[in-house]
Amino acid sequence: MPDYHDLRYLGQTDSPLPESPEQTELEAVPDPHADIDYLVRFTVPEFTSLCPVTGQPDFAHLVVDYVPDGLIVESKSLKLFLGAFRNHGAFHEDCTLLIAKRIQAAIQPKWLRIGGYWYPRGGIPIDVFYQTGEPPAGVWIPDQGVPPYRGRG
Amino acid sequence: MPDYHDLRYLGQTDSPLPESPEQTELEAVPDPHADIDYLVRFTVPEFTSLCPVTGQPDFAHLVVDYVPDGLIVESKSLKLFLGAFRNHGAFHEDCTLLIAKRIQAAIQPKWLRIGGYWYPRGGIPIDVFYQTGEPPAGVWIPDQGVPPYRGRG
Amino acid sequence: MPDYHDLRYLGQTDSPLPESPEQTELEAVPDPHADIDYLVRFTVPEFTSLCPVTGQPDFAHLVVDYVPDGLIVESKSLKLFLGAFRNHGAFHEDCTLLIAKRIQAAIQPKWLRIGGYWYPRGGIPIDVFYQTGEPPAGVWIPDQGVPPYRGRG
Amino acid sequence: MPDYHDLRYLGQTDSPLPESPEQTELEAVPDPHADIDYLVRFTVPEFTSLCPVTGQPDFAHLVVDYVPDGLIVESKSLKLFLGAFRNHGAFHEDCTLLIAKRIQAAIQPKWLRIGGYWYPRGGIPIDVFYQTGEPPAGVWIPDQGVPPYRGRG
Amino acid sequence: MPDYHDLRYLGQTDSPLPESPEQTELEAVPDPHADIDYLVRFTVPEFTSLCPVTGQPDFAHLVVDYVPDGLIVESKSLKLFLGAFRNHGAFHEDCTLLIAKRIQAAIQPKWLRIGGYWYPRGGIPIDVFYQTGEPPAGVWIPDQGVPPYRGRG
Amino acid sequence: MPDYHDLRYLGQTDSPLPESPEQTELEAVPDPHADIDYLVRFTVPEFTSLCPVTGQPDFAHLVVDYVPDGLIVESKSLKLFLGAFRNHGAFHEDCTLLIAKRIQAAIQPKWLRIGGYWYPRGGIPIDVFYQTGEPPAGVWIPDQGVPPYRGRG
Amino acid sequence: MPDYHDLRYLGQTDSPLPESPEQTELEAVPDPHADIDYLVRFTVPEFTSLCPVTGQPDFAHLVVDYVPDGLIVESKSLKLFLGAFRNHGAFHEDCTLLIAKRIQAAIQPKWLRIGGYWYPRGGIPIDVFYQTGEPPAGVWIPDQGVPPYRGRG
Amino acid sequence: MPDYHDLRYLGQTDSPLPESPEQTELEAVPDPHADIDYLVRFTVPEFTSLCPVTGQPDFAHLVVDYVPDGLIVESKSLKLFLGAFRNHGAFHEDCTLLIAKRIQAAIQPKWLRIGGYWYPRGGIPIDVFYQTGEPPAGVWIPDQGVPPYRGRG
Amino acid sequence: MPDYHDLRYLGQTDSPLPESPEQTELEAVPDPHADIDYLVRFTVPEFTSLCPVTGQPDFAHLVVDYVPDGLIVESKSLKLFLGAFRNHGAFHEDCTLLIAKRIQAAIQPKWLRIGGYWYPRGGIPIDVFYQTGEPPAGVWIPDQGVPPYRGRG
Amino acid sequence: MPDYHDLRYLGQTDSPLPESPEQTELEAVPDPHADIDYLVRFTVPEFTSLCPVTGQPDFAHLVVDYVPDGLIVESKSLKLFLGAFRNHGAFHEDCTLLIAKRIQAAIQPKWLRIGGYWYPRGGIPIDVFYQTGEPPAGVWIPDQGVPPYRGRG
Ligand SMILES: [Ca+2]
Ligand SMILES: [Ca+2]
Ligand SMILES: [Ca+2]
Ligand SMILES: [Ca+2]
Ligand SMILES: [Ca+2]
Ligand SMILES: [Ca+2]
Ligand SMILES: [Ca+2]
Ligand SMILES: [Ca+2]
Ligand SMILES: [Ca+2]
Ligand SMILES: [Ca+2]
Ligand SMILES: [Ca+2]
Ligand SMILES: [Ca+2]
Ligand SMILES: [Ca+2]
Ligand SMILES: [Ca+2]
Ligand SMILES: [Ca+2]
Ligand SMILES: [Ca+2]
Repeated sequence: MPDYHDLRYLGQTDSPLPESPEQTELEAVPDPHADIDYLVRFTVPEFTSLCPVTGQPDFAHLVVDYVPDGLIVESKSLKLFLGAFRNHGAFHEDCTLLIAKRIQAAIQPKWLRIGGYWYPRGGIPIDVFYQTGEPPAGVWIPDQGVPPYRGRG
Repeated sequence: MPDYHDLRYLGQTDSPLPESPEQTELEAVPDPHADIDYLVRFTVPEFTSLCPVTGQPDFAHLVVDYVPDGLIVESKSLKLFLGAFRNHGAFHEDCTLLIAKRIQAAIQPKWLRIGGYWYPRGGIPIDVFYQTGEPPAGVWIPDQGVPPYRGRG
Repeated sequence: MPDYHDLRYLGQTDSPLPESPEQTELEAVPDPHADIDYLVRFTVPEFTSLCPVTGQPDFAHLVVDYVPDGLIVESKSLKLFLGAFRNHGAFHEDCTLLIAKRIQAAIQPKWLRIGGYWYPRGGIPIDVFYQTGEPPAGVWIPDQGVPPYRGRG
Repeated sequence: MPDYHDLRYLGQTDSPLPESPEQTELEAVPDPHADIDYLVRFTVPEFTSLCPVTGQPDFAHLVVDYVPDGLIVESKSLKLFLGAFRNHGAFHEDCTLLIAKRIQAAIQPKWLRIGGYWYPRGGIPIDVFYQTGEPPAGVWIPDQGVPPYRGRG
Repeated sequence: MPDYHDLRYLGQTDSPLPESPEQTELEAVPDPHADIDYLVRFTVPEFTSLCPVTGQPDFAHLVVDYVPDGLIVESKSLKLFLGAFRNHGAFHEDCTLLIAKRIQAAIQPKWLRIGGYWYPRGGIPIDVFYQTGEPPAGVWIPDQGVPPYRGRG
Repeated sequence: MPDYHDLRYLGQTDSPLPESPEQTELEAVPDPHADIDYLVRFTVPEFTSLCPVTGQPDFAHLVVDYVPDGLIVESKSLKLFLGAFRNHGAFHEDCTLLIAKRIQAAIQPKWLRIGGYWYPRGGIPIDVFYQTGEPPAGVWIPDQGVPPYRGRG
Repeated sequence: MPDYHDLRYLGQTDSPLPESPEQTELEAVPDPHADIDYLVRFTVPEFTSLCPVTGQPDFAHLVVDYVPDGLIVESKSLKLFLGAFRNHGAFHEDCTLLIAKRIQAAIQPKWLRIGGYWYPRGGIPIDVFYQTGEPPAGVWIPDQGVPPYRGRG
Repeated sequence: MPDYHDLRYLGQTDSPLPESPEQTELEAVPDPHADIDYLVRFTVPEFTSLCPVTGQPDFAHLVVDYVPDGLIVESKSLKLFLGAFRNHGAFHEDCTLLIAKRIQAAIQPKWLRIGGYWYPRGGIPIDVFYQTGEPPAGVWIPDQGVPPYRGRG
Repeated sequence: MPDYHDLRYLGQTDSPLPESPEQTELEAVPDPHADIDYLVRFTVPEFTSLCPVTGQPDFAHLVVDYVPDGLIVESKSLKLFLGAFRNHGAFHEDCTLLIAKRIQAAIQPKWLRIGGYWYPRGGIPIDVFYQTGEPPAGVWIPDQGVPPYRGRG
Repeated sequence: MPDYHDLRYLGQTDSPLPESPEQTELEAVPDPHADIDYLVRFTVPEFTSLCPVTGQPDFAHLVVDYVPDGLIVESKSLKLFLGAFRNHGAFHEDCTLLIAKRIQAAIQPKWLRIGGYWYPRGGIPIDVFYQTGEPPAGVWIPDQGVPPYRGRG
């Protein structure tokens, strides 16, 4: 079993919410099944950031998929990293793609994608979909299955 | 069978969209089953008006229920009346309740209610629910069953 | 067990579709459980009639509930009766309430209601809800649970 | 039409997010239909606060229903008031009921209720339901219709 | 960060609804992540135009997907552009494809598609699906997931 | 704890399917919480019988609710009793009400109801709803929540 | 804009329902966007025909997809053509494929498919799926998304 | 039109349920559209068999898809064949694959598949999916779309 | 604010799973809004116990509603208490009602109810519904809204 | 028919829950249809394990798909094997992949995949998706269709 003793957040009493995404370390731990290729999915229905122009809060439902390459994301550090956008101002595309790039930098996965499903503003929600390229052959990549926005009725 | 010959819109070649709700006659026709009490429901997923302050379009899903008292609403005049809000400015509450009052004035039903389910603005949709009082005893009044707004995810 | 030998349609080789509702006999058979009060529900997703003005076809989803009073509706005669509206012209309210009255006449139930859920015309569907009065006390009357019309999206 | 000129937030260029709920004025405007009784529903899928013990973010879906008594809530001030919980620490019950009490103080409605549907913590979501008493007779109060939490699968 | 100072609509006090699609400038802004390929989705449940023959209103739910090539659509100009169809007469196919072509002209994306899901007329809704060709390899293009029209029942 | 040693089926190796409902003993066991009143619900999506006239199989989804009065139904005997309708011929109403009466006879509950939701024949499904009278005051009786039949689309 | 003056049905006062599919002209009009390839979908939840053996009515939900090749289907003639099956006897497979062939003959599309989702008979619904071959490369062909038949429960 | 006169079951007064699958003739009739390739789908929500070890009833929802090669399945014989499993003992895999093989033998289709969705036993449902090989190129093969089992909640 | 310093579990590093329900203290804390009456709902989709006869695991989805009377349940102690059924053997009715009685003993609420929705065994799920009597007047008690079990298809 | 006489669990009176996954034999039986390739799916909504660090229970919904190669999994041994995780501590990824590897070792299938859909912790559920490589050509592999986690609302 990998050694989890030196982690910054996991197993500590509850850590304070970081000030900003930049100040949060996204930790990696050894992949316990590095001999095979598989997909890990994080679903994040509790994401919020600020509009960089007006300072008003924005909300999103995010889904992150990745195929590890020897490292996996430590989930408590992920939670804190995502929570750190709470008082951070950035456009929908920026937030979504920034998260993708930070995870990519932290664990250098074989493949990664992110779906950012943002709550409507002005009646029109924006979704942002990104992947690092074609999925690796032979790995199972299920649809994210998030239903489209319908308005009312 | 009631006489439908003198109607202003029904059976005419397609009528132009009226300029405003005030300029639209909401017609009544004799209830073909005036001997019994029953509920008529109109569902209107195609409603739009303008914000009276900013002039931006608003959208709503409306459901109108009423128990006739000798008269029923002629549905083509209803369609034109509702279409006439297209370039009319009024707040959500005003539009919803104004429609209720106009139908009430036109057919004097035993009972009427309206549910106005408005598309979100600023992340928060407003619904407006009005009825003219307790439903008449012994008449079947099913739930309108419109699902609540969920945001994303 | 009641005697079903003299029925006009049931157990016969397939009967032709009747010309009109008037020419169809809606048969009653003895209630096998006349000692207790219960509700029978027919769900009719295959109903169609004609518009009396334009001759165009109309479609509806109907649900009929009744509490028998010694007689129940023979279901094959019901199917033929409802099929007989196929070339019959009548407004939505008329069709719905006519069906209620014919069943009422045929079996004189303790209580009856009908929900007529019509397909949209001009973007606005009409629903018609009728019951013969307050449901009899102590009888279980579940909601019909038909979802409201939503438009698209 | 009521006078909306002296409002603190509405019609202003985008207002900064308030520091705390206490520092936010929840404004009231005259009810444009004070002659009748009706229900106004706000649905708030974008609510977030902090845990008062750990400082971790909490999320909720809120639905507020009220029957005005001469005043209605100005919706932009409501949005800012709710946004002000972003950096405010309070338990689920406290947040939910505090919102109810602030709206009640601001507009003194005939009746008010709030449903607070909180995201799960420890696998168990908490919902909080409050109303100021029996709904006023004859006013239509539809179900809030929020689906229950299901876990996975 | 790109410079957003010279935009025609964004950051201005609320702009009046344009007279027609032709009179609306669909603005482009620099893509903040031009180094990678990703998909942007706009969902537009609030679209309405007029029938060019009868002048009656039409309604649609639209979904636009595109892969930027150095420019992205400024969303406030998009909202105004789409709002400008409000008093514009065109058939379903025309509206849907015109929107695709205008966005294509404004930002010259690597790839674009549009789904136009129109509310039923005469009982039969029309959907229009267009894309500029095969999606670029390696870019993630999720299904639009709009449920089909069901009629009633 | 009640004594379950003398039961005919429970705890035995798998019992053969009974020949007919008449030959199946529906067993009662002492209610472990006879001091309070509560509702027990059995949901039976696996019910089948034969048409008494044609011998063709019929299928139903059944839901049974009851409030015990000192005895509860032993569930394995219930399963066998319901399985015994497999080669038994009876109309929809008969099967549904016969089950109600047998359970009533076996445990003499304070209150009982049954909903029989039958698969469509001739395009029209029949539902049968029965209860023994008004539910006892103060006992919680949730809706059965079975969705209505919709046909296709 | 194409010339729509010589059409047989469109723009005329409401046309009588044709006697049979053979007697209905399925009209074609010039494709307003012949320069690009796109998909047009008609959803037809209001289809009915007769069983050729028993004369009993059959019902279906139909979805037609096609990629025009210079011509599109005039929708009012389509509605009348489909309505003309009302008194026409043919098996499920025949009706479904006959419609495909008639549309194909009328507009010679680049590609066409039809899904026929028939209401159950004898507990077993039949679906019929046909396309004229592999879809043309680079054209967007969304799933029809019609949910499967579930029976009850 | 093909000749249906010599069929064993179709058009006969209601046939008795066969004793076993082996004793049921699965009849083939000429394909009325042998000139083209299309898919026929049977949905069977009313399937039941017996456990070969315990004799307890099993239930399944089956979906059969095939592309005819000059012959199609006569649906009444299919219904009787499937009904004949009622008193037949076989494991889930056996029943499902046996049905596939019998249909294959009867009509020698170009391609066939079956999905067997069995009701849970011991909390774990088994699904069985079989096809005769890659679907023939250019034929439309929609997803079966049966939702997965969810347990409760 | 109430004093939470003396709690046995809350705020402690993660507590071990208790051996049995009897060994778990269900803690009460002062109600922060004792001046008003409201409903608290716990939803527990993660409940499991053992069959007292066979030792096999059972699973349930539980929903608990209560109206506090000066005390509320401390949620971490509730989580541990419910987790303590993991290796505890009891029938469905026993588990469900035992939980109700323990919560009742711990906080003496004005009113309490529990819905126990158990996973199917032998094809037939059992639900258990209990409340302490009629809900207190004027308190809002929403439906639990748990969908019924459907089997497959 | 294969010989099932020497199985360790099947056909025995109810076996005790094993102490750990290691102590459970996952049995294989001969594939009754070894001549063809098909997919077997187990759906497991009743899975629970322990967190290896805190000892707190975790819950998951699992779906296992495999294509047999002469052997199939004996389902009672599978149920016991999965039940043996009840008091076993391992991370989400470990549990999910361990199950895959044990089944793989026991039956050496042509192909296998597993979807592990875990209940949320800290607001973020983790899903784990693994397959042994590209599915074998020509075998039908339907989507698992598990809906994504949505939070509340
Ligand atoms: Ca690896
Ligand atoms: Ca009347
Ligand atoms: Ca009676
Ligand atoms: Ca809509
Ligand atoms: Ca008032
Ligand atoms: Ca589940
Ligand atoms: Ca780019
Ligand atoms: Ca339908
Ligand atoms: Ca009792
Ligand atoms: Ca073209
Ligand atoms: Ca062929
Ligand atoms: Ca669940
Ligand atoms: Ca209190
Ligand atoms: Ca079912
Ligand atoms: Ca094989
Ligand atoms: Ca949500």
